[in-house]
Amino acid sequence: MNSGADIAAGRFAHHGGRLCVARTLFPDVPQPWIDLSTGINPSSYPAPRASARERNRLPEPTELAKLEVVAAMAFGIDDPARVVATGGTENALRLVPYLLKTAAAAIAGPTYGSHADAWLRAGVRTEIVADSDLDSRAAGSVAMTVVNPNNPDGRLLSQDRLQTLHDSLQANAGVLIVDEAFGELEPQHSVASLAGTNRAPRMIVLRSFGKFYGLAGVRLGFVIASPAIATQLRRLLGDWPVSADALRAGLAAYADEAWAEKTRARLHRAAQRLDKLLTGAGMTIVGGTSLYRLARAPNARARFTQLISHGILARPFDYDSTLLRFGLPLAANDWRRLADALKMQP
Amino acid sequence: MNSGADIAAGRFAHHGGRLCVARTLFPDVPQPWIDLSTGINPSSYPAPRASARERNRLPEPTELAKLEVVAAMAFGIDDPARVVATGGTENALRLVPYLLKTAAAAIAGPTYGSHADAWLRAGVRTEIVADSDLDSRAAGSVAMTVVNPNNPDGRLLSQDRLQTLHDSLQANAGVLIVDEAFGELEPQHSVASLAGTNRAPRMIVLRSFGKFYGLAGVRLGFVIASPAIATQLRRLLGDWPVSADALRAGLAAYADEAWAEKTRARLHRAAQRLDKLLTGAGMTIVGGTSLYRLARAPNARARFTQLISHGILARPFDYDSTLLRFGLPLAANDWRRLADALKMQP
Repeated sequence: MNSGADIAAGRFAHHGGRLCVARTLFPDVPQPWIDLSTGINPSSYPAPRASARERNRLPEPTELAKLEVVAAMAFGIDDPARVVATGGTENALRLVPYLLKTAAAAIAGPTYGSHADAWLRAGVRTEIVADSDLDSRAAGSVAMTVVNPNNPDGRLLSQDRLQTLHDSLQANAGVLIVDEAFGELEPQHSVASLAGTNRAPRMIVLRSFGKFYGLAGVRLGFVIASPAIATQLRRLLGDWPVSADALRAGLAAYADEAWAEKTRARLHRAAQRLDKLLTGAGMTIVGGTSLYRLARAPNARARFTQLISHGILARPFDYDSTLLRFGLPLAANDWRRLADALKMQP
Repeated sequence: MNSGADIAAGRFAHHGGRLCVARTLFPDVPQPWIDLSTGINPSSYPAPRASARERNRLPEPTELAKLEVVAAMAFGIDDPARVVATGGTENALRLVPYLLKTAAAAIAGPTYGSHADAWLRAGVRTEIVADSDLDSRAAGSVAMTVVNPNNPDGRLLSQDRLQTLHDSLQANAGVLIVDEAFGELEPQHSVASLAGTNRAPRMIVLRSFGKFYGLAGVRLGFVIASPAIATQLRRLLGDWPVSADALRAGLAAYADEAWAEKTRARLHRAAQRLDKLLTGAGMTIVGGTSLYRLARAPNARARFTQLISHGILARPFDYDSTLLRFGLPLAANDWRRLADALKMQP
């Protein structure tokens, strides 16, 4: 193991998308950088922009309500009162500990780091729990978070399993939070239509706009919860939680079922192509979704450094130095540069 | 007093900018509507937009840091660590009660309604205090909020008075929050450079982007506080509090001193012109800033209804039916329509 590679990898193990850091640390690698460190769709939805007039005024409550109606339909939810638009899921999940006053938090992991961070920062006792221990942990006043499909390994819990977890948490004044940041890729596994209904009153679902629609810079996300929790959250967010541009983009994107259908198929093909490249280079596919692939290799850290020397940023993990996550390249030239870089033995 | 006018006015007395409601309630008035119900600059900063690439990825921490540096310079603050960018001041002020754990809240008022609302929603004992009672109330563990210049009456407290209030609050484990939403209009009265320094460690200043720069739909605001409070707030906001578009707009606008200078002069002239129209129609100017004028007339509610019949939305207040607030018209034709409507005796 190359300790220089470990030090460099440490700078990129908290979140993806730290291209500025890569640029500063490694100014002399081939340009432009190819950022494969996130799970954001590189071919984003062709979203309209807010008009000059819409930027110039406060978004109106009726526009926000309309966005929540359109998003509810896309999520398969019959009552938009359960759907709360926010300025991104990250923003929302940081507020959740302040809404739910549970004694402890359990997070199915390893997973997206912000969940544990949010609970710890709020001063709540927090533990990362293996999937096999979720049922036993659900017998407590716990806010349990499951990312589904999981990031980075794509693990999916069934709707039945999530319902069982919810019921056992509910019996103990607990709450189940299901982060469906990549839910558009597996719509048949979504529990968004259940969250906050009589069947699952203590289930909360998080949805992200930026990932599947590829517009992470727009900052839009949703919390789906019981009307009581939804009302509390709306108060905490204030009257204008979402920008005019996010309103305009979300209204168009969530109404466009044809684009979503076509994009699911296109991303699926791209993920298969990426798997072929990675396995061809001697890596093993551990899992993922169509927006990112998790690969294992004993020399993953050296691989990470070698890719950087080709101007390609993958995503390492601090809890397992044999893993690398890869987002999808877009341009033909990016695919070629990745293929060339992977051909070299690190 | 016309009770129908009172009922209509009640729908517009919480916040300005409810043009959708006006459109629905009064579909047959002259079009287009002229919205004078807010204090947003109708001639907004010609801000660049985020590029397609910037919308497609997460904003980078370095870009957020750069925005905070540029905004700090515009606010006259020497250490950007005290400046926290947020997705609008409304968003930020709702979180403040969760950061500060004071026993009670006092708000210098009447003023912008969201302040009292935020504290009440957070379950804190909250009272509206007249300016003359601020000093006596500062002798308690109180989070005291002063909007300066005040909305709607433009009342200004001096820097010395605010420093004295802070010192007395600090001695009692209290906090002073100064909302400078319209601070760009009175830069010489800003206490932003003091907030969170050793001279005023328990002072927090809020700044809005949308008002003076006329880009309320972009959602951008700032909290200026001690490094300790700033760090807590950054954690509560998460890693991407601000959209790519807000970053791009804020970076350009806060660096453009020439535009700010010219705009202050232009708004000042427009406010004088508006005063002339309002006094010519028999109303008395009570106060305001260059972005809004507060006028009094015994028949203000009838005036409000009559303006609506001309397709013009002013801002009534539930605590005083003789007051109306007017934002600035922009186009020559809007000025003309307002002048014509005001000529009619209600």
